[in-house]
Amino acid sequence: MVRVDGRTPGQIRPVKITRHYNKYAEGSVLVEVGDTRVICTASVEDRVPPFRMDTGMGWLTAEYGMLPRSTGTRTPREAARGRAGGRTMEIQRLIGRSLRSVVDLAVLGERTVTLDCDVIQADGGTRTASITGAFVALVDALAHLVGEGLIPCLPVKDFVAATSVGRVNGEVVLDLCFAEDSAAEVDMNVVMTGRGRLVEVQGTGEEASFTREELDRMLDLAAEGIRLLVDYQKKVLGPELAAQIGGR
Amino acid sequence: MVRVDGRTPGQIRPVKITRHYNKYAEGSVLVEVGDTRVICTASVEDRVPPFRMDTGMGWLTAEYGMLPRSTGTRTPREAARGRAGGRTMEIQRLIGRSLRSVVDLAVLGERTVTLDCDVIQADGGTRTASITGAFVALVDALAHLVGEGLIPCLPVKDFVAATSVGRVNGEVVLDLCFAEDSAAEVDMNVVMTGRGRLVEVQGTGEEASFTREELDRMLDLAAEGIRLLVDYQKKVLGPELAAQIGGR
Amino acid sequence: MVRVDGRTPGQIRPVKITRHYNKYAEGSVLVEVGDTRVICTASVEDRVPPFRMDTGMGWLTAEYGMLPRSTGTRTPREAARGRAGGRTMEIQRLIGRSLRSVVDLAVLGERTVTLDCDVIQADGGTRTASITGAFVALVDALAHLVGEGLIPCLPVKDFVAATSVGRVNGEVVLDLCFAEDSAAEVDMNVVMTGRGRLVEVQGTGEEASFTREELDRMLDLAAEGIRLLVDYQKKVLGPELAAQIGGR
Amino acid sequence: MVRVDGRTPGQIRPVKITRHYNKYAEGSVLVEVGDTRVICTASVEDRVPPFRMDTGMGWLTAEYGMLPRSTGTRTPREAARGRAGGRTMEIQRLIGRSLRSVVDLAVLGERTVTLDCDVIQADGGTRTASITGAFVALVDALAHLVGEGLIPCLPVKDFVAATSVGRVNGEVVLDLCFAEDSAAEVDMNVVMTGRGRLVEVQGTGEEASFTREELDRMLDLAAEGIRLLVDYQKKVLGPELAAQIGGR
Amino acid sequence: MVRVDGRTPGQIRPVKITRHYNKYAEGSVLVEVGDTRVICTASVEDRVPPFRMDTGMGWLTAEYGMLPRSTGTRTPREAARGRAGGRTMEIQRLIGRSLRSVVDLAVLGERTVTLDCDVIQADGGTRTASITGAFVALVDALAHLVGEGLIPCLPVKDFVAATSVGRVNGEVVLDLCFAEDSAAEVDMNVVMTGRGRLVEVQGTGEEASFTREELDRMLDLAAEGIRLLVDYQKKVLGPELAAQIGGR
Amino acid sequence: MVRVDGRTPGQIRPVKITRHYNKYAEGSVLVEVGDTRVICTASVEDRVPPFRMDTGMGWLTAEYGMLPRSTGTRTPREAARGRAGGRTMEIQRLIGRSLRSVVDLAVLGERTVTLDCDVIQADGGTRTASITGAFVALVDALAHLVGEGLIPCLPVKDFVAATSVGRVNGEVVLDLCFAEDSAAEVDMNVVMTGRGRLVEVQGTGEEASFTREELDRMLDLAAEGIRLLVDYQKKVLGPELAAQIGGR
Repeated sequence: MVRVDGRTPGQIRPVKITRHYNKYAEGSVLVEVGDTRVICTASVEDRVPPFRMDTGMGWLTAEYGMLPRSTGTRTPREAARGRAGGRTMEIQRLIGRSLRSVVDLAVLGERTVTLDCDVIQADGGTRTASITGAFVALVDALAHLVGEGLIPCLPVKDFVAATSVGRVNGEVVLDLCFAEDSAAEVDMNVVMTGRGRLVEVQGTGEEASFTREELDRMLDLAAEGIRLLVDYQKKVLGPELAAQIGGR
Repeated sequence: MVRVDGRTPGQIRPVKITRHYNKYAEGSVLVEVGDTRVICTASVEDRVPPFRMDTGMGWLTAEYGMLPRSTGTRTPREAARGRAGGRTMEIQRLIGRSLRSVVDLAVLGERTVTLDCDVIQADGGTRTASITGAFVALVDALAHLVGEGLIPCLPVKDFVAATSVGRVNGEVVLDLCFAEDSAAEVDMNVVMTGRGRLVEVQGTGEEASFTREELDRMLDLAAEGIRLLVDYQKKVLGPELAAQIGGR
Repeated sequence: MVRVDGRTPGQIRPVKITRHYNKYAEGSVLVEVGDTRVICTASVEDRVPPFRMDTGMGWLTAEYGMLPRSTGTRTPREAARGRAGGRTMEIQRLIGRSLRSVVDLAVLGERTVTLDCDVIQADGGTRTASITGAFVALVDALAHLVGEGLIPCLPVKDFVAATSVGRVNGEVVLDLCFAEDSAAEVDMNVVMTGRGRLVEVQGTGEEASFTREELDRMLDLAAEGIRLLVDYQKKVLGPELAAQIGGR
Repeated sequence: MVRVDGRTPGQIRPVKITRHYNKYAEGSVLVEVGDTRVICTASVEDRVPPFRMDTGMGWLTAEYGMLPRSTGTRTPREAARGRAGGRTMEIQRLIGRSLRSVVDLAVLGERTVTLDCDVIQADGGTRTASITGAFVALVDALAHLVGEGLIPCLPVKDFVAATSVGRVNGEVVLDLCFAEDSAAEVDMNVVMTGRGRLVEVQGTGEEASFTREELDRMLDLAAEGIRLLVDYQKKVLGPELAAQIGGR
Repeated sequence: MVRVDGRTPGQIRPVKITRHYNKYAEGSVLVEVGDTRVICTASVEDRVPPFRMDTGMGWLTAEYGMLPRSTGTRTPREAARGRAGGRTMEIQRLIGRSLRSVVDLAVLGERTVTLDCDVIQADGGTRTASITGAFVALVDALAHLVGEGLIPCLPVKDFVAATSVGRVNGEVVLDLCFAEDSAAEVDMNVVMTGRGRLVEVQGTGEEASFTREELDRMLDLAAEGIRLLVDYQKKVLGPELAAQIGGR
Repeated sequence: MVRVDGRTPGQIRPVKITRHYNKYAEGSVLVEVGDTRVICTASVEDRVPPFRMDTGMGWLTAEYGMLPRSTGTRTPREAARGRAGGRTMEIQRLIGRSLRSVVDLAVLGERTVTLDCDVIQADGGTRTASITGAFVALVDALAHLVGEGLIPCLPVKDFVAATSVGRVNGEVVLDLCFAEDSAAEVDMNVVMTGRGRLVEVQGTGEEASFTREELDRMLDLAAEGIRLLVDYQKKVLGPELAAQIGGR
């Protein structure tokens, strides 16, 4: 089988992460996965939400947005509609949980890191690209805090990256572009750490279902893709920073 | 290991579904899973959302709510806050997708079935109890349409039920009550059909991660639990209705 | 004249109040008046709204909601519409005022009791059933505070209950069901105490008017009905609790 | 007993209605009751709400607002708060019902009359002053339709006016100003027609209750006050228009 | 050229400012410019917004509203629509900036003055009439603070007034009424001080443009008009108050 | 005087416009003015707002947004706050009016062009950069319609561009960066066409005022700056497209 963009079933799209994309944010990247492009900024603020006050622990949260014309036809702006929709909320909760799973919030202290993931162009996999890119922005922001002497060491326990996998026309494929995503019978997002542990598995059969064997095949492909993404994150961050992640 | 309520790791809580709980709705149940209680009503309306107009096909959607004091401490009413929160939206999207996976919307015709799942008392697993109960309310509503001669046959391709599974204190357990859910390192919701096919797998490690082996063990336990739930659905619906589901 | 459900003009529908309906709330009932069913919970919180702060006095407020399919055709959820409607606000203000009229808020101390009245099934008289039921939930919640040693005595000055009365096809009738309510030329809600004093009288002629004599007849019928409701509240609460109400 | 502003218990405040207060509206007045001042405009539009479409009948609705500094201390603007509050909704529903009770909506045809009652200065009784004033604006708007040949006759079945009455320091008084209203144990709004029939009776004991005898006394005083208000409405409208009201 | 209401191109409409229009506000006027009528109230509160706390400086802000039938056809109420529109926000920001330009907020101390400008009848130039009228209400409110001994002197550095100017059918005219405003190719609002300094110049060519020469001509006319408006403000405030403005 | 970034008072910052920045939009650019970066997309839809229906004419509107971390400290997302703020509305109205001034909406036919201007990084002058960039995106979108044979010719009457000018520390300077903007006593935005006609002049003295001479000097500087911006627009669009603008 040849895919719409010529890839093999188990092949991910070209990935590119540009660090320091924004001159204000403590950490920021432009992440590109194929034609999907997301700006991720990590902002550090010296306050925590009420449920963390006086605990000595920090918080990490994420917000997600799409520019109106990041999509094939223009999508109305959520600010104009007066509220974030269900899909947006679902995605920003997913990004936040995924990144919290590898951060030591006790070391962070009573600070909040907000990861803003804004989609400039959407061609499938915007939520997984957001996680993969936001991780790099997060490391930069935390390294900045270390550099300022505000925290003693990089509080990052492991790498984390994400990809999508699905069943399209009966075939299991990795890293779906928009055309594939629209035609998929099963759609799964997988978030894994650098050590290969699972953080999130969200498999969905919209008007369809799937077998345990298909699930297994999808998880295998996802694990391979995420391994490549973590390798790329290491390269982009450079050996010095990478060495401090999940250290002894 | 003995669980907080005396169950074994692989044991589900007592389940009870009371049909015809509401005199107005086309289908309605009170579903009880342990101390979790949810009223599910299925309402049929002769209109479809814009994206289904003039397609000849129907639609099925779900809404979810919690009474303010369904929880240990009072939760503010979403109508008072002016919008449904992210968790609510995530849950009602899950319920809708799960039930759509077993319904033939072409047979339904240009009608909308709305499943309202309102939690009267919450003790863990409200979203999975909602799916299990709403399925029965849905079958009753569709049987009502058959009875009225509005559709030719019951457009239900299979049973569908759901349960939660997770890792609590390092041990994999089935059907978490609220006390377990609060302490869980990993939390997974699984939706399966009567034939044992997967519809949704949503596994989450909040500030934790899990191995592929743990995932497998959780899926095994969930499959066993859902088998029992489907058996109970069959019993509650009675042989005549059950026989029409997924028929030839 | 025989009414739609066979009652005489001055006859109320069967009433049933089930106490301790919810395992979390300090007080909770399921109240049934004919086919009208409302869950009332009383939640106690250790804070007061700004206008009561540092006054040593407590506050009591009510919220009211209807499940979407509590009605003959499905009513959109207020959380989805983004705000509580005018009718809802009017009703919750009425319930709050009615219950505050018999509670000694100075004895309550700086606490807030919130009465949530959620209509499971609506067949006329939901606001008056809410008041009658919420009173019992309130007494249970306040008795709980006495039992915990948090307040010295039950701060309830009198019983309070409510019913509707109206003019249907020119005849004055008590406790209107939905079919009667829809056809009523005049609709009145009356709230009275156990000693027979009036707390609220809300008589409305929608596209109609009424004479002073009709008003008098309606008030007489309402007083009789409320007498029966208070007798039933006493029975449900039991002699021990009932004896503490209105005692000096 | 002498009241705060020197009136006797049964005395209403000076009333003044200035017609044609606004050059655009089909009917408009400035109504003054003591220091309470309300601008009432009646706007006619050639459309009806969905529930009246294709019925041949019209609709009449009311909206109510207060300028931010109509009150002793500035009240935040409801547009800034993003929604109309409960009290506002309750009042606009009351004004609408009261005026609908005397209008023949079949003669009006498929048109909507909107009565906007905007309080310029509030000194008690703003909702009853709104009803009394809006009636005059409504008659002018309907007479305008007659004058344009759009409807055959003035579709007004009777006069309608309103006043408040209450118990202050144990004494029953008519037409409460703000100082009295704040101190009232019982507060009642009464709406009556020119023929002395009741349209609305809304009596409320906030943290208090009242006897049937007190209710009777309050209704007697209100009837007297409303008689004077209707006489004034007749004078303001002039004999020609007044003669067309309630005519067969 | 003769204008729609008979004025010459450089002639402003009759202006009238009635002081002390509201018995509660610290300062209040009814300002009339032709048929445009606006109630302006100045309310003083003993608190400042967060960005001014602990600075010793005060704040001045403005809000603007239109009664629904202040316009030729009824405009829906912003409270009903749930938010203030873009035009409203633009206008209230303009009014606030204009008045802040002549007030010494350090002398005001940590207080907020809110100018509410509510349009009773709109016939063009409502925002400029609001500025001209609100200035007088503001002076009265600040003089009230001086009279109460709360501030040492009138913190008003200069007079400020505003008018509109535009190009209608190719001709530059002053103080546009609604009919002219609707037909204008260019519309400009000018705010100037008593000493003839500019505070705001907002010139707009909707689907048109204008030359520098036209801009100059418009500014000349506006300066003449504002000179007359300031003269009138002086007369209305009286020599004693006027003398304290912009004093040494 | 040397400015914070070394420019002379009359010098604009480096400008760069990258066309075809987005693969979906009919027209799109990334515009950079110094460190200010804005993505502008032009989306064409085959419908018009109600007030243009059945007129044969098109519409052009603009929306404006800022990514949360486009600013020095993170700005909350407007979708989270539930509404667009006053500043946002003011800016999008300005952009829309400016571009409409040079488009022949009759030639466009019943289509709507929406210009989305999303600020990626804000360093002063975001609204004027939006206008300058959006013009190029607009021309590309309209040329696309010509290319598709949907409209007969490019309906663009002239170039349009914008810049800011202001008084900082008593000196008039062109194209303010954020540091200058924050310190400016007077801030003016000027929109001009390629032929040097004015479209918008918005000069504001926040807590300050300015003379007619200063206004003249600011307009002179702005005219020079806009001349350079239009030259750059011509170069970026290329001679073929540029020749079609405003030509007959």
